[in-house]
Amino acid sequence: MNVDELLAAVAAGKMDLNEAKTWLKKLPYEDIGVAKLDHHRSLRRGFGEVIFGQGKSVEDFERIFRAFHERGEAILSTRTSKEQYAAVAHLDGAIAYDSRSRILTLKGEAQKKPPVGAVAVLTGGTADLPVAEEAAQTAEFFGAKVQRFYDVGVAGLHRLLDQLEAIQEAKVIVAVAGMEGALPGVVAGLVSVPVLGVPTSVGYGANFGGLSALLTMLNSCSEGVSVVNIDNGFGAGYSAAQMNRLMASEE
Amino acid sequence: MNVDELLAAVAAGKMDLNEAKTWLKKLPYEDIGVAKLDHHRSLRRGFGEVIFGQGKSVEDFERIFRAFHERGEAILSTRTSKEQYAAVAHLDGAIAYDSRSRILTLKGEAQKKPPVGAVAVLTGGTADLPVAEEAAQTAEFFGAKVQRFYDVGVAGLHRLLDQLEAIQEAKVIVAVAGMEGALPGVVAGLVSVPVLGVPTSVGYGANFGGLSALLTMLNSCSEGVSVVNIDNGFGAGYSAAQMNRLMASEE
Amino acid sequence: MNVDELLAAVAAGKMDLNEAKTWLKKLPYEDIGVAKLDHHRSLRRGFGEVIFGQGKSVEDFERIFRAFHERGEAILSTRTSKEQYAAVAHLDGAIAYDSRSRILTLKGEAQKKPPVGAVAVLTGGTADLPVAEEAAQTAEFFGAKVQRFYDVGVAGLHRLLDQLEAIQEAKVIVAVAGMEGALPGVVAGLVSVPVLGVPTSVGYGANFGGLSALLTMLNSCSEGVSVVNIDNGFGAGYSAAQMNRLMASEE
Amino acid sequence: MNVDELLAAVAAGKMDLNEAKTWLKKLPYEDIGVAKLDHHRSLRRGFGEVIFGQGKSVEDFERIFRAFHERGEAILSTRTSKEQYAAVAHLDGAIAYDSRSRILTLKGEAQKKPPVGAVAVLTGGTADLPVAEEAAQTAEFFGAKVQRFYDVGVAGLHRLLDQLEAIQEAKVIVAVAGMEGALPGVVAGLVSVPVLGVPTSVGYGANFGGLSALLTMLNSCSEGVSVVNIDNGFGAGYSAAQMNRLMASEE
Amino acid sequence: MNVDELLAAVAAGKMDLNEAKTWLKKLPYEDIGVAKLDHHRSLRRGFGEVIFGQGKSVEDFERIFRAFHERGEAILSTRTSKEQYAAVAHLDGAIAYDSRSRILTLKGEAQKKPPVGAVAVLTGGTADLPVAEEAAQTAEFFGAKVQRFYDVGVAGLHRLLDQLEAIQEAKVIVAVAGMEGALPGVVAGLVSVPVLGVPTSVGYGANFGGLSALLTMLNSCSEGVSVVNIDNGFGAGYSAAQMNRLMASEE
Amino acid sequence: MNVDELLAAVAAGKMDLNEAKTWLKKLPYEDIGVAKLDHHRSLRRGFGEVIFGQGKSVEDFERIFRAFHERGEAILSTRTSKEQYAAVAHLDGAIAYDSRSRILTLKGEAQKKPPVGAVAVLTGGTADLPVAEEAAQTAEFFGAKVQRFYDVGVAGLHRLLDQLEAIQEAKVIVAVAGMEGALPGVVAGLVSVPVLGVPTSVGYGANFGGLSALLTMLNSCSEGVSVVNIDNGFGAGYSAAQMNRLMASEE
Amino acid sequence: MNVDELLAAVAAGKMDLNEAKTWLKKLPYEDIGVAKLDHHRSLRRGFGEVIFGQGKSVEDFERIFRAFHERGEAILSTRTSKEQYAAVAHLDGAIAYDSRSRILTLKGEAQKKPPVGAVAVLTGGTADLPVAEEAAQTAEFFGAKVQRFYDVGVAGLHRLLDQLEAIQEAKVIVAVAGMEGALPGVVAGLVSVPVLGVPTSVGYGANFGGLSALLTMLNSCSEGVSVVNIDNGFGAGYSAAQMNRLMASEE
Amino acid sequence: MNVDELLAAVAAGKMDLNEAKTWLKKLPYEDIGVAKLDHHRSLRRGFGEVIFGQGKSVEDFERIFRAFHERGEAILSTRTSKEQYAAVAHLDGAIAYDSRSRILTLKGEAQKKPPVGAVAVLTGGTADLPVAEEAAQTAEFFGAKVQRFYDVGVAGLHRLLDQLEAIQEAKVIVAVAGMEGALPGVVAGLVSVPVLGVPTSVGYGANFGGLSALLTMLNSCSEGVSVVNIDNGFGAGYSAAQMNRLMASEE
Repeated sequence: MNVDELLAAVAAGKMDLNEAKTWLKKLPYEDIGVAKLDHHRSLRRGFGEVIFGQGKSVEDFERIFRAFHERGEAILSTRTSKEQYAAVAHLDGAIAYDSRSRILTLKGEAQKKPPVGAVAVLTGGTADLPVAEEAAQTAEFFGAKVQRFYDVGVAGLHRLLDQLEAIQEAKVIVAVAGMEGALPGVVAGLVSVPVLGVPTSVGYGANFGGLSALLTMLNSCSEGVSVVNIDNGFGAGYSAAQMNRLMASEE
Repeated sequence: MNVDELLAAVAAGKMDLNEAKTWLKKLPYEDIGVAKLDHHRSLRRGFGEVIFGQGKSVEDFERIFRAFHERGEAILSTRTSKEQYAAVAHLDGAIAYDSRSRILTLKGEAQKKPPVGAVAVLTGGTADLPVAEEAAQTAEFFGAKVQRFYDVGVAGLHRLLDQLEAIQEAKVIVAVAGMEGALPGVVAGLVSVPVLGVPTSVGYGANFGGLSALLTMLNSCSEGVSVVNIDNGFGAGYSAAQMNRLMASEE
Repeated sequence: MNVDELLAAVAAGKMDLNEAKTWLKKLPYEDIGVAKLDHHRSLRRGFGEVIFGQGKSVEDFERIFRAFHERGEAILSTRTSKEQYAAVAHLDGAIAYDSRSRILTLKGEAQKKPPVGAVAVLTGGTADLPVAEEAAQTAEFFGAKVQRFYDVGVAGLHRLLDQLEAIQEAKVIVAVAGMEGALPGVVAGLVSVPVLGVPTSVGYGANFGGLSALLTMLNSCSEGVSVVNIDNGFGAGYSAAQMNRLMASEE
Repeated sequence: MNVDELLAAVAAGKMDLNEAKTWLKKLPYEDIGVAKLDHHRSLRRGFGEVIFGQGKSVEDFERIFRAFHERGEAILSTRTSKEQYAAVAHLDGAIAYDSRSRILTLKGEAQKKPPVGAVAVLTGGTADLPVAEEAAQTAEFFGAKVQRFYDVGVAGLHRLLDQLEAIQEAKVIVAVAGMEGALPGVVAGLVSVPVLGVPTSVGYGANFGGLSALLTMLNSCSEGVSVVNIDNGFGAGYSAAQMNRLMASEE
Repeated sequence: MNVDELLAAVAAGKMDLNEAKTWLKKLPYEDIGVAKLDHHRSLRRGFGEVIFGQGKSVEDFERIFRAFHERGEAILSTRTSKEQYAAVAHLDGAIAYDSRSRILTLKGEAQKKPPVGAVAVLTGGTADLPVAEEAAQTAEFFGAKVQRFYDVGVAGLHRLLDQLEAIQEAKVIVAVAGMEGALPGVVAGLVSVPVLGVPTSVGYGANFGGLSALLTMLNSCSEGVSVVNIDNGFGAGYSAAQMNRLMASEE
Repeated sequence: MNVDELLAAVAAGKMDLNEAKTWLKKLPYEDIGVAKLDHHRSLRRGFGEVIFGQGKSVEDFERIFRAFHERGEAILSTRTSKEQYAAVAHLDGAIAYDSRSRILTLKGEAQKKPPVGAVAVLTGGTADLPVAEEAAQTAEFFGAKVQRFYDVGVAGLHRLLDQLEAIQEAKVIVAVAGMEGALPGVVAGLVSVPVLGVPTSVGYGANFGGLSALLTMLNSCSEGVSVVNIDNGFGAGYSAAQMNRLMASEE
Repeated sequence: MNVDELLAAVAAGKMDLNEAKTWLKKLPYEDIGVAKLDHHRSLRRGFGEVIFGQGKSVEDFERIFRAFHERGEAILSTRTSKEQYAAVAHLDGAIAYDSRSRILTLKGEAQKKPPVGAVAVLTGGTADLPVAEEAAQTAEFFGAKVQRFYDVGVAGLHRLLDQLEAIQEAKVIVAVAGMEGALPGVVAGLVSVPVLGVPTSVGYGANFGGLSALLTMLNSCSEGVSVVNIDNGFGAGYSAAQMNRLMASEE
Repeated sequence: MNVDELLAAVAAGKMDLNEAKTWLKKLPYEDIGVAKLDHHRSLRRGFGEVIFGQGKSVEDFERIFRAFHERGEAILSTRTSKEQYAAVAHLDGAIAYDSRSRILTLKGEAQKKPPVGAVAVLTGGTADLPVAEEAAQTAEFFGAKVQRFYDVGVAGLHRLLDQLEAIQEAKVIVAVAGMEGALPGVVAGLVSVPVLGVPTSVGYGANFGGLSALLTMLNSCSEGVSVVNIDNGFGAGYSAAQMNRLMASEE
């Protein structure tokens, strides 16, 4: 029974009013007002489910993965270990694993559509690549067209400036940097689109596990920079894809 | 002389090659490739200039304000003190000062256009209002249509849920919160648009000047949250306006 | 119109079903399932409303206070400045202000009932008194019988042990301490009831605004200690009153 | 000889006064006033002894465990390694080990009694389970009836709201959460019983080993939240059981 | 009645045994075993009482000061404000106030005895003087002979080495330093007596209120250094006097 | 008597050998080996003495200033308050005070020589000026030729690149920046001379009093950057002058 | 040639004065004034040499150990690994290794003398034993009579009070504690001798590697506490032995 | 085609003006004005390329190394693992690996030139050697003459003073120290040349991974100290070589 049926039953005198009231109180949220709570879920569902692999035992991972798999859903799993991958590699469907980004995917219908928009993913150095790939592949999984600009850190400014024209064509920029973390601020000063800063834990000494890069990005003097957690390539990729999709119909 | 003229002069044999080479070396960046550097500036210029009032002496503030004023530009000045306002209040044009947000504006043509899109600015409590207003008024200055949802913190969840439908109509959400700072994460779980978290220094004890709210937002489990510096309403308002404008033609 | 009336109207055929469904979607949460959200509010309301004075302008404070006052509700206002008190002192009713704890109260019916249970409030030193009084008076406002044991810090253990028998009669203990903050741990080792530790910012040097006492309490080796924020006497008093009331019918 | 006998001997002139005075000075604390020191111990003893396994060598662990075992006492050992378990697994009695929570128990008479009250243990995510189970099993060991509500984090608010009615039936709530740690604050806003927040070290980047969740909980805007150390499931379970028992006779 | 009298009364049959037992239970700790708790107090009492002025209202300060004053005791009050001093300046006896160290004293018999031993108080710079004087005058109040060696910081090593011979005659050394805080470690490498390091909050930038000097001293490679809290001249002076007195009879 | 005279006396048999040995033991360090300790002092003396004004009472400041003044020495006083300046303004000689940098100077012969070398002082923003001026004027006091490049922060890269050629002519660069502090790293990537980074406390929120800029500079990916304390313009100016002088004879 | 011989040669006219002056400048410090620098060394030498094993390769360790060994000196090596011990175990002399404290000793004549004085070493819990043993054995190596009082933490105050009389007989107390670290402060309030606090890294969560215990001890309200670095049992043992020896002749 | 050829072609009418303009826009920065960007690179190139080994997979490392190797360039690789070394050890040329400093070099022509100037590298203890060797060998690779002064920490000041004369002959000093990190400040007080402080992570407890030494050096009271990141021997060695070379022609 849903709200329509309930109201019909009440109108038809087939249901006691107290019973109806009780039913309404217990009504699953998705059937009335609070169904809005799931709005974003249904929206996202078209793009598949997400599993955060880190900290999950191989057994737990396999069980969760299978549950989604059986429902025939596309799956994006981040921070997946090789052992976790091995546990599900034999399942049906195009399961792919990228050891650098530790992203495991099972693509669905949504992933077969042509990508839209333009997301640029930049890194300061080569050591930031795993985080950058997590961002890039996440954005791709959620439908974005992604272009990579790696190793364009501010210590050699010409590397960045050489690529500037191409970078300026992006609608959203993800700038990944460790150590001093100055890349997002410098880039944001050169473009007119949102820049998502991703501090990485790359470095040593007083970088304190990425804190130095995080603080740099939060204190950026350039307008247009917002920041996600240290090493959170997934979060940046998701946000970039979300912004990109909302901007895409602009063209 | 610009690049076109130079090349014409060279082609016409009117210019010595060494002289031409020297000229090219000194060429202002805006005339050749690196002119891209100013791309964002010209874009933004239409919306007026920005002055960060804090830490500037009244004399310095007045001098900078006058310089912009004389060029006839629209001006947004953030963190402006009453003394700074007093020093320029007598100048021509519609100079307005809001003591709560400490924003001083001199509106130009761009500010007279009808606002576009939909930016929602939320606060956890009433004490977050100054920062929220800085965000809201900044976004409005840069052309966004802004709706305010104040005092909808997670300690009384019904206040937030009551307004959810209206909030979900925004294209970009700015969520301002101090103390525990959980608002952006909770909101992001209920919507499908970007959420910009603004931690505030509101609170006491172990909030350490806003650090607690900042860390909460950075560690949000909800996808779609990115964060700006503590109390940085301007930064959030700017980013929100930027995203909003890029999404606005979507409709 | 409420749910009962709606259902009656539907049953009587006086209301269109679509209209009814729309109404249900917009139904204020307190009328159906989500009314549970307000469960605690209605429960607490009997004891009056709470205003956090700190950071509110005198004007804002007065406006909020008046709104509650006009509804005839009892009011507990914490961290109230003398200026805020002055702005409402002339209003009707028994408005009282304690400058040490900065608590302002307008007592209602609930506050006239005899207090129940037994809450003990301890301090390590005399400088912790303002926070301790905030806790004690908050607990009293919410109906608890409170006994104070001040200046029983662990640097002079006999002061604590001399009072131990009386302390052990409490159902809930609030232990307030700055500097080293060892009091809650030592007390918890001597009693069998919950101890709420309140670190204070009292001290200097490496106490870092109360951090030292906070860490001490969180790391207590004694079972039964839980902790609230630095200087958060209100939070401890509220929790103590809540626990005390739930235990009170035990006798 | 106890105090009674001493006094009798003195009254009977059978004991020299100086000898009596000396005896009184050395009197074990448990025989006079300071025996109160042991009040909580004897109270707790009925529920068995507690061993903190972490950091103890297998040899030390076995020796301590045996000592309690020989006295026929019930034992709760937390943070027990598999090696430590192996060293005592062969001993008499129902020794059980749970590898997820790392709790090892030897149940006694107290543990055979029916549990009382109602403690709810909630987690934000599945990765918080080990800490939550430490809390839940500790509370059960000390006599509480425990109900688990796992994976109800604030990123998907409907998961929490769906269970709200059941959660509201608890007398004490333990809310376990890592990363942003917003769960205890949100829950406390929905219930009228004490909420014990347990921050976990689950997360990465700027969660700084649980610091982010800890600060969030300490800064909660909701009344009724108190906090234990990061990952301290035992402490929360103990406090919850203590509160629960003190409230239990209420019914 | 004391223990002797009680026992006599019991022996004489003048006291009921139950009454005696009750009396013993309530016996002030100082009369039996736990009287040891006061051992240090009685010892210290000969040297007068200590009041920590900081954070006390003028009224509270005056009340406490008077209480000691009326009992005819010597008084050492640290961190005393001018206002606090003014409130008691008119009382009988030789009340003296030193505005640099903010120490207020009322000397008693103990302070009239000739000082013993040899405590050296060193500072790195002139800005460390207030803390150093607090240490020196505290040590003098508690009976130590004190010699001052100011402005002998390690940035000009010859200043320290020039005085080395005199410094080496001390039995206990208090080394006060801010900024880099290297003095205690360097001195300890040159002497064979205990060095008490006192970090001061003197400095700016990354000294973080004395944290830099504190960490330096804690990490000293020289044996024989122990440390007190930042700016805690009193603590160092007290400890130095205590050690000095225990060593003094050596000569 | 100096070493020469002593040895002569010994050789002439005018001095007892034991007496000579004793004298040698007490010999002021500057007369034999340890005289090296003063090597740098005598070197620096030619450039005048330095007084750190901050934290010194007006009386102390005046007394120290007078002592140097009477010896006819040039004086550089940093962090001097207006009150300190007023206390010595009437003294003989060209005493000058700059309220922005808070530097007070009494120039001597050394300051009248033409400056040598080339030190460039850069700032990220206008708010960094006081620190930059402290650096620039310090370097000038110690004989360096200084060129200022202010407001060339990385948020508007073209401002920096426009001035690059001139900046590249410096022998030593002092780069002063607050907030994100990226300037020294970006500059060092564009030049081949030492860059001294000076983090400033300019900013708000998560800049934590300059910590963000400090960490950025320490983590710079560009070779050739070394860092001084937050706001330590004097230290950078001194080091720059020292390096500049050592390089100056190169030309 | 030494100073005596030099002076004799000069007096005898056998040495040129310039040559003599040069020789004096290069004179090893131990032969003239600065020989004081070695005062403490010669003093300590009687008790043997100290090697800090941690971080040294087995080869380096063996080489250093052998160098001391060959000079026939007593050796105390702290933080020695089993591998380091194995590398020197075969050498002559009574080489002993304690795996709990990781102390390796080669006792000399000084270690055969009867111990003097009275040092008490206390721990809060059993996990603090390795650090406590490092302190105790270090103190013993340097000649102190040591008595151990382990597992007397403040969570069970009776355990401490039961032993109080014996503890009060010490001349110096080393109090070792992790987690909350309250032991030194509580003990210092009960005795009249110096208490050296040793924070340990024992604990988890918000103890931050011993920081919680360190801050607690630094903020102790009890006079007479000074603190060494986290886990620095050696430093405390050394200081305790030093104080103890200086006090020992008192008896 | 370069700028000269382009201009010639334009002058000769062989090139279309629009084409020329396009070409100029895309001109590699090194050919016109911005070629300054590469100034330092070409300068440095003579001394070989630098690879930061840490965090690179063996495959990535080998690929990058080969690329440089094939171009016949000299190579300095820091933080190289044994595995990385093994992967390239078989290549042509004099490839050398130092396991203590983890520096791998392939020397080129520049490295065969005689070293110039005078860089002194000092360490506080033997455990600082790996970092010091990284600094020393880096400086040597870039052409500096380096002298090592190891184990001259301030805990035994005579060790430092004994070597002072030799140290004072350096043009640049690199002072490497862990734990308390006081060495650079003490040394800078004794010399008149720049001192580069390198904090190391050597130590334990409250050294917090080198933070204590870092803060000490930043807060040094001695003029002339600048600091690089914790354990950043390479950075110090590079800066020292750079300064040294710029000073070298002075002689």
